Amino acid sequence: MTYDAVGEKARAVKEASRVLYTCATGKKNSLLRAINARLRSEIPSILAANARDLAGAREIGLSKVLMDRLTLDEKRIGQMIKGVRDVIALPDPVGVVMEQVKRPNGLRVEKMRVPLGAVGIIYEARPNVTIDAAALCLKSGNAVLLRGGSEAIHTNRKLAEIVTMALQDVGLPSGCVEFIDSTDREAVMAMLKQELDVIIPRGSQQLISFIQEHSSVPVIAHGEGNCHVFVDRSADLRKAGEIVFNAKVQRPSVCNAAEKLLVHRKIAAKFLPPMAARLRKAGVEIIGDEETVALLHDAVPAVEADWHKEYLDLIIAIKVVGNLDEAIDHINRYGSHHSDAIVTGTKRNGERFLREVDSAAVYVNASTRFTDGYEFGLGAEIGISTQKLHARGPMGLVELTSAKYIVHGTGQIR
Amino acid sequence: MTYDAVGEKARAVKEASRVLYTCATGKKNSLLRAINARLRSEIPSILAANARDLAGAREIGLSKVLMDRLTLDEKRIGQMIKGVRDVIALPDPVGVVMEQVKRPNGLRVEKMRVPLGAVGIIYEARPNVTIDAAALCLKSGNAVLLRGGSEAIHTNRKLAEIVTMALQDVGLPSGCVEFIDSTDREAVMAMLKQELDVIIPRGSQQLISFIQEHSSVPVIAHGEGNCHVFVDRSADLRKAGEIVFNAKVQRPSVCNAAEKLLVHRKIAAKFLPPMAARLRKAGVEIIGDEETVALLHDAVPAVEADWHKEYLDLIIAIKVVGNLDEAIDHINRYGSHHSDAIVTGTKRNGERFLREVDSAAVYVNASTRFTDGYEFGLGAEIGISTQKLHARGPMGLVELTSAKYIVHGTGQIR
Repeated sequence: MTYDAVGEKARAVKEASRVLYTCATGKKNSLLRAINARLRSEIPSILAANARDLAGAREIGLSKVLMDRLTLDEKRIGQMIKGVRDVIALPDPVGVVMEQVKRPNGLRVEKMRVPLGAVGIIYEARPNVTIDAAALCLKSGNAVLLRGGSEAIHTNRKLAEIVTMALQDVGLPSGCVEFIDSTDREAVMAMLKQELDVIIPRGSQQLISFIQEHSSVPVIAHGEGNCHVFVDRSADLRKAGEIVFNAKVQRPSVCNAAEKLLVHRKIAAKFLPPMAARLRKAGVEIIGDEETVALLHDAVPAVEADWHKEYLDLIIAIKVVGNLDEAIDHINRYGSHHSDAIVTGTKRNGERFLREVDSAAVYVNASTRFTDGYEFGLGAEIGISTQKLHARGPMGLVELTSAKYIVHGTGQIR
Repeated sequence: MTYDAVGEKARAVKEASRVLYTCATGKKNSLLRAINARLRSEIPSILAANARDLAGAREIGLSKVLMDRLTLDEKRIGQMIKGVRDVIALPDPVGVVMEQVKRPNGLRVEKMRVPLGAVGIIYEARPNVTIDAAALCLKSGNAVLLRGGSEAIHTNRKLAEIVTMALQDVGLPSGCVEFIDSTDREAVMAMLKQELDVIIPRGSQQLISFIQEHSSVPVIAHGEGNCHVFVDRSADLRKAGEIVFNAKVQRPSVCNAAEKLLVHRKIAAKFLPPMAARLRKAGVEIIGDEETVALLHDAVPAVEADWHKEYLDLIIAIKVVGNLDEAIDHINRYGSHHSDAIVTGTKRNGERFLREVDSAAVYVNASTRFTDGYEFGLGAEIGISTQKLHARGPMGLVELTSAKYIVHGTGQIR
């Protein structure tokens, strides 16, 4: 797709964002219901489009993890529909007055939530993001320019058509949701130079870094999760075993799965052999530092790059540390500031870990797998922000808004 | 300054940010008091450094507005000291729990304010920013890399030395506040590629655009204020006159001063001639669209570029509009989304203006000059954000923080 064609779509999105800026909640919910009606009646054609993507993916030998992300079936379409229903049920964040103050000079100053405006979303294999992201953006009053991964192009094109039909059904401009129907990187490059209010990239660190490097539009990065569990000397080792196993094995392909296990030296010899046996039984490959390899003879020796890596697979790297400080330093240095946990029986160590580890979510005695909008009680999310600006952690409707100051006067001057 | 030298300073700032991340409020306030003590004892050397900058500025023929911004005297140093005292008095935002929820599975999820980390600030002529910005960043637990304008290099160097001495006085690393002692643009370019958590540029749209184009670090833009006052048909014309006069004349060199006046056609012939006379008497040059020029014969005809321009001077451009919609459209299209006001006697029009004008601060029946941290009751500010992400409008201590989720569990797994 040419630079100009992307520019035209971006302008349509910006134009439509002005309509959505003051769109009533009822109207936005009608639109979401229309999307669901269209999704329901188009299930066969969505599956047909997805089959074409899957055939292409098989041909190029896509990894098992990515094949799984790409696949839609009736159940997953049902989840998409349920996701939209959940967004309908969420309160509209727009127009909410968050702060209000009457000044001595009589001015009434209010801070009110408003839509961000025109949002660009760049994502990879999962086609459900096309619907999830559109629903969240629309409910929060934003118009959105979508650009999905090349593997899912047929499915995404079909889903985008469905949204366009739903927009027509309720009489809103098609620019409310535009889809970049192109798989080349120039289209992404062109998006980064448009007059959008924010770009949200979801995907590999490589994609995120490319976007941060080249974007003139503000970015909210949804990057990797190189998540750690640290098992402290005082940990309840049975609980620790459950947490480590859950964080690594329950769903290894997601960003809040554990990639690293740090173990206090004093308990390493007791904790690691049975833990490793349990992980291996579940198919987990074990990588370890020198001390770990000395304890677990068939562990693969770690190289420096391992400590930075997000495997997104049944692989874990284990390191033995001398104390809490060493664990915190390692996590702050090598982690991706996503989700990190300590298992400890010492309250003071738990509190220090929570305070000193600089990550979007920090846990005492729980699995890292809980970093999720629903699990935190925030509702549907557009992803997990791994940056510090604007939104950090699960990003829901509220994080898709900005604010403005509204000031009522009676003729005040300075 | 070489790329490597900037990199070294940025790494020192990042390193020091880890110390400040968990620094107690008392310690941070001691540091601020030490800065004030040093400022007080160094007044003569600050004034001497400033005299060198002023001499240089006179030589290159700096504009009156910029000369004024550059100038320090005992009174202005006193204001800097008072500013630091105000920051000491403000509550520490770090560690505040903003939200807390107990989940059905027993997890306690809290959202807590934490420092942003390593902040880069790029500013132009005003040397007081060196102290103001350092104080706000330090109180909010951030380390800061400062880069001031070339006109103020001697003054800024002296002020940075004072801060470094204060850091030594209380035993904090000098990396808490580093100063880029260089006036070339390569130093700015190098800053934009460092591992900082945010860059805050304050200055001309040209500077901001350059930074947005080239920064790999997230940016919070403090851009221009092309602010409007719209005088509606139903306005109390006496109040309207006071508001327009105040917004334009009281301090024309600041970003919340009015640059444009929109007037409803039905009252233009009655309102404009006396308003123009009053403005002219105060030295204001008047630029106008065709209808305005027809009413005010010595107004300069406006060109398209005028509607985009921030004059920062005793100049105003006037346009006659047919109705509220035309006024809102003009402001959303040509404005800089900073501060815009309507003067009206019609409640409905006021509410529509507040809702539909997409600016950081929108006013009914008050001067745009109130967009300011103190005036809004937020305390000292680092500037006025003109972007929608993270912070919009006056940016104070709270806006210099991020958040993290802190989760207390008892062994929960998913």
